[in-house]
This record gives sequence, structure tokens and C-alpha cells, in this order.
Amino acid sequence: MQRILSTELTGHIDETVTIAGWIHRRRLLKQVAFLIVRDVSGLSQVIVTDPQTREQLERLSEESVVEVTATVTASEQAPHGVELTGPVIRELSRVTVPLPFELHRPALTAGLPAQLDHAALALRHPSRALSLRIAAAAAKGFRESLEAQRFVEIQTPKIVESATESGANVFKLDYFGRPGYLAQSPQFYKQLMVGVFERVFEVGPVFRAEPSDTARHLAQYTSLDAEMGFITDHRDVMAALTRTIAGMLREIGNHADVTAELGAEIPAVHFTEALRIAGAPEDEPDLAPAHERALGEWAKKEHGSDFLFVTGYPMRKRPFYTHPDPADPTWSNGFDLLFRGLEIVTGGQRLHRYEDYVTALAARGESLEPYAGYLDGFRFGMPPHGGWAIGLERFVARLTGIANVRETTAFPRDLNRIAP
Amino acid sequence: MQRILSTELTGHIDETVTIAGWIHRRRLLKQVAFLIVRDVSGLSQVIVTDPQTREQLERLSEESVVEVTATVTASEQAPHGVELTGPVIRELSRVTVPLPFELHRPALTAGLPAQLDHAALALRHPSRALSLRIAAAAAKGFRESLEAQRFVEIQTPKIVESATESGANVFKLDYFGRPGYLAQSPQFYKQLMVGVFERVFEVGPVFRAEPSDTARHLAQYTSLDAEMGFITDHRDVMAALTRTIAGMLREIGNHADVTAELGAEIPAVHFTEALRIAGAPEDEPDLAPAHERALGEWAKKEHGSDFLFVTGYPMRKRPFYTHPDPADPTWSNGFDLLFRGLEIVTGGQRLHRYEDYVTALAARGESLEPYAGYLDGFRFGMPPHGGWAIGLERFVARLTGIANVRETTAFPRDLNRIAP
Repeated sequence: MQRILSTELTGHIDETVTIAGWIHRRRLLKQVAFLIVRDVSGLSQVIVTDPQTREQLERLSEESVVEVTATVTASEQAPHGVELTGPVIRELSRVTVPLPFELHRPALTAGLPAQLDHAALALRHPSRALSLRIAAAAAKGFRESLEAQRFVEIQTPKIVESATESGANVFKLDYFGRPGYLAQSPQFYKQLMVGVFERVFEVGPVFRAEPSDTARHLAQYTSLDAEMGFITDHRDVMAALTRTIAGMLREIGNHADVTAELGAEIPAVHFTEALRIAGAPEDEPDLAPAHERALGEWAKKEHGSDFLFVTGYPMRKRPFYTHPDPADPTWSNGFDLLFRGLEIVTGGQRLHRYEDYVTALAARGESLEPYAGYLDGFRFGMPPHGGWAIGLERFVARLTGIANVRETTAFPRDLNRIAP
Repeated sequence: MQRILSTELTGHIDETVTIAGWIHRRRLLKQVAFLIVRDVSGLSQVIVTDPQTREQLERLSEESVVEVTATVTASEQAPHGVELTGPVIRELSRVTVPLPFELHRPALTAGLPAQLDHAALALRHPSRALSLRIAAAAAKGFRESLEAQRFVEIQTPKIVESATESGANVFKLDYFGRPGYLAQSPQFYKQLMVGVFERVFEVGPVFRAEPSDTARHLAQYTSLDAEMGFITDHRDVMAALTRTIAGMLREIGNHADVTAELGAEIPAVHFTEALRIAGAPEDEPDLAPAHERALGEWAKKEHGSDFLFVTGYPMRKRPFYTHPDPADPTWSNGFDLLFRGLEIVTGGQRLHRYEDYVTALAARGESLEPYAGYLDGFRFGMPPHGGWAIGLERFVARLTGIANVRETTAFPRDLNRIAP
């Protein structure tokens, strides 16, 4: 099929061309019918005056797929100054059921549940498609920034023998007759791969059996993971992350008119300072969403930044693989990155000596056994290292101002939804 | 830590520098000790004459991680013409257990099970690390070729309500108290996303509960999926795939000295012709591995090509979503791509009309119900489309001459292995 795209029409005035796409809208006036065809690049207007073609069009409802061969005609009133005249329409597939909602209005009027039930249709709306394009650009920018910084891409197992993060929220499966679990993160695998490539990254699904149904949790999300060796401490990781976020925003800017304020350095405050700024009691063990929001406002006001690092979270609130602050082991070399007052990245320096893992687990009263398969690799020499994980959907939601992460992924999975 | 890499030493002759890496090997001679340090870029030779440093080195066994500050000295005998002298060694982490196998020999002498049991160590061997670098380059080449052809990256659910390919070999899990399954492919999701972006791709894990333990099956592998709309038939898909494979080989060539014979067009034979070439009976319903090998030899001899398309597989051996050959519906518009006599890609044109899915399932005596969630999207207008899936590990194995796919992935999963 030798077709051209709607955006290419202006280069073919007075020529006969073939376009193809979905019937976005028909307007059947008395003397003339307007057919708007949507393809991946945009809309084309087709003028139908021939009675037989009009009859054909009357039988083809919205979202039917057609190929249109016609003459490109300059027209001042038409979008982009061109319309198609004298069309021959070939039907590629016909819609014979009523659409659950209309696609041709500027905003989707259907509620989120209806959109998710009919995702294959809803995602065709430009507003929904744009989020997915931004997600694709974010992933591309992530990979390219990291490759430029000598990181190597890895693929790690999603079926694991035991939970990778302590505790619950793990999906259990039948692995050839014995128990297996879906990986909650590639945490230990990416750490072990630092022993191979020094710097690694992975873009892949992670699974959380989140028992709560909130606007910012998904049962499967895309994690943008990175891990790097031979660091002095978490600040080297924060510097690499800052460069990476800049690369992501740059790539997104090539595809969409959205951006965020990011300087050459992201401001950073210690956890104790963050509590003070947020007006929280100084013995608070973690930052609540309201605190994060207050910190986001503060970063914008004081530093003109949409991003803020919070460092030095209390050790007792961070996972056991976190490296303590050597100056005061109450605090950690772990950090979060807040984006407009929402945590979108967790990272930090990790323990790199096997003995330190043994000690850390014992201090928490946890058994080494479930982690033995991973930790074995730490016996064979690991450099000081650290890394991060960015939640892709949360990042896109925050960047675009979308309130619910379900709108930033094609086919979300949550407590109540396993289809389509 | 301000370190330089081993490959950067030649630019710093007579300067004091810091390198860091793993103790690859020590040779403790009477007068002098040689320390070989391995980093991600290669090896550095360090000359130790100072008695205290030598004593320190004697206590540090292979794979311990060190930082070495020393003078870069030109030396004709040393690898790359430089060695490090007068070193100060700082220990970053020490190996205190015997290594299960040695890493400093040209080939790993340990058997595959031992390598897999201690993957975090085995993967440090250059031969094992190279396969993973090639896999990373293949994925990068795949993505970049497709982006240049207007494909958009998507992420799809790995937890699904029902099997995506008919039949068994599916992992079952507990999804918030009801049954869920691990996706065997992103097949229907990528098809539905053709309705949004016309051309899409995904690089992600797929899961097969393969009950057999062979050298070419994994329970989790990385699938390089693509799907494109507005095609005439499967030949448009084959052309896009050929360009994509070329891009993958080009990118791999930037990282490793391996390649394959690929012309501007890959030779293609119809299934009936393939049976004849392979000397198989003409009523054979599929190609056995021996037939594929014979075809690989034929393609090399007749066309000088490492690749061969086999088209028109019998409909009864292809999945229900396959589009039949309009000229004779005994045969399909499905194809396989053989690489050196092994199937590494399956693809073809798909059905695009909802009614055709209903008919195809009925003709096979299969119920529509398990597929209803996916097929609903086909009611809303889909263009003629097709696509393919490349098995990344198989592709890398065939390219590098590795016999077992387990050696082309970091932490393989199979019938007997769920760890590390």
C-alpha cells in the first residue's frame, strides 16, 4: 500500500495521492460531506460531493478504517491549507457496533473506568496517546543518557525464588510445581551486574501486589533502574541521575510540548532539614505526602527547581541493603528525588561487603536465608556502588499533570483490574 | 573517586594516576610481584617491589577489589606498552572464600551448571560478558532501527487474565485472590496498539512454562516484538524486519567482532519449496530442526546468505490470529526467519477484522471467551497489519556460535532453575 501521511499532503498539491486511516468524523451536510481521516500524524479533510461516494460514506461509521485516493487541493479554510477532493474510498475494516464513547472531541468525556475497559479505543485519543509517547521518549532518553555515561543494558529475571524487598506485596506463582515470586525490583541483580560491567541499567516491568487502590500505585509498573560501581558515596549517584533526568527531559521535548525546571545541579536537603522545612516534628521517621508537597513548593520558591533531593533518610526506614552514613549511622546514604512534591525516584549507596550484609540482616532480626542466593555473589568482591529506580508512570504523570498513574500506561493492572 | 580506566593509561605516561578494579591475577615472584587489575575496559599490570605493598598483596586474593595509585611507566614488555610502578594499594573489598573457579584463563573451565550457580562470578569472564554486551547492542540496534521506521515503543502487561497463545505452557499466579497468568507474548496488546500508533515495538520478558529441558528453551526470555499497520501483506513485514536485522548487526559490529551475511534482501522460499529443498515428504505439516539445518546450508550455498525466510506455513500449524493466504487459504501469510538453520523469528500478517477472529476460532472449535478481552478492541476498526517476535537469546547464541541459550542470558530460568 503506497500511502502518504496527512502531514505530507502539503508537499503534493494538485497530485493524486493515497492516504489511509480511521474515520475520525463525518459531517453529512446537504450539498457536501466532510470526511475527516485520522492517521498517526494527524487529520486530513476529504470533500465528498459524488452521490455514490457519499452513500458509501453514510454506511461507514466512525473508527472504520479506510484508504482514500484523491486529489490534494489547496484550500484556505481547510486545516493546514489542504483538503482532498474527488475521493475514491476503499474500506479496510468497518465498525458495526456503537462506540462506547466518542473520540473526536478535544477531551475524552468518558470516565476513567470506561476508558480502561475499552483501552484499545480510548488510547487512540490524542490526549491519551500523548502520555504514552512521552513515556516512550522518557525511556529512550534514559537509555541514551546512560549509554553516554558508559552504562550497559541488562535483562534480569522476573521470576525469583524469594522476595527481593522484605515483606509482603509480592505475587506468588506456581513455578513447575514449586513456589516462585514475581520480582518487586531488579535490585540485587543489578547490584551483582556491577561486578561485570561496573555500570548497568534496565528498563523493565516490576510487580507489587499493592493491596490498596490509590491514584499512584500500580500492580505492574515500568522501572527505570540503574546501578554504578566505584563511587565515593551517594552523591556520585545523584550526579549521574541528574544528568540522566536532563537527558530524559531533552528527549521528551523532541516529542511533546512539556518540560520541567531542572538546573545543572538539583538542590539537596538532608532529611532533618527537610522535616524542618515541611514543618514536621523532628522525630518523624519518614516524609508524608503532605511533607513532600510542602518541600516541592519550597524548592520551587527558593531554588526555582521542580526537583529536590532529600538525602540521609533514617536507616530504620530504608531497606537493609542501604549504606549508612559513615559519619553517623543513624542516617543513611539513601536519597529520594521529589518532582513537584512527589517522590519519583528512590536511590542511594548500597552495602558492598558480604560481612556488612550479614551484620545488617542480623541487626534487623532478619534471616539471611531468603537472600542467600543473591548475597552469595557479594562474597566475590564488589566495589562501593549505588543506584536508583525511577517509576516511569509516576514520572510521566507528574510531568504532564495527570492525576492518576493509570492514565499514563496502556493497560494498567491494579487490585481490581487484570484485563484487558 | 577520581579514577581512570585501564585503556586510558597510555595517555598518562609518567603521571601519577588512580585505577580501580578487581585483582585478576597475582604473580608473586622472588624479586618482584605482578598484579593484574581488571576493570570494565581491560587489564592493567602493576609492578610491586616494595616489601610492605607485597605483603599487602599476598593477603589479597583474586577478585578482591582494589584502588591503585601509581606512576604510569612505559614498558615494551607490558600489555599496551604501559605498566604501573610504585603503587599504593587501597583495599575496597576483600575476598575471603575460595573462588569456585578461576577467571583469569582464556576460557572458563567450569561446567555450565557451576557457572550458572555462581553467575555473578562467571559473568565476569570476558567470554560470558561479551554475550551480554552483544545482547545489549542487539536490543539497541532493534530499537533504533524501528524508531527510524516510525515505530513507537510500548510497555504491555505481563500479568494477563488468560493465555495469549492457545494451550499449555503458561505460568499461573495468584492475582489478589483470583487466577492470573504470565504473558507468553505481547501478541494481542501490540496488535491493539497498532490502532493507536500504527507501528509499535516492545523489548520485554515473556514467559513459557516449557516442560522440556533443551539447549534452546528458557522459561523467561527477552522478546523483541514489533507490529505494523497498513500493510499489503506479510512481505511488507519481512521488508521492515530485514532492515531491522541489518540495524541490529550494525550496532553489534560496534561492540564485538562478530557478524553475519545479510544482503539487502533476504532470500525467501515458500513452505512447499522448503520441504522439497530439505528433502522432506510433501505432506509434512511443519519443519523439523533437521529440515531447518538443511535449509540453512542451502541458503548459504545458493544465496551466500546466513538468513532465509520460509513463507506460507500451513494454516493448521499457525496460531488462530494468522492471516491466510488469500490465493489459497490452506497456506498462511505467516513466515519464519531462519538464521544459520535455526528459527529465530516468527512473524506474519494477522487477521484484522473482528468477524474473521470469530470465524477462525469457531473453525478450530475454540471458544471466543478466553480471548474476548483482547478481541473486543478489534470491533473498533483495525487496519491490515502484521509483525514479528525475535527471541533475543537465540539470536545471540546463533550469532556467536554458543550452543546453549543459557549462556547468552545473565540469570537463566528453566525447568530446574529459579536461582540465583
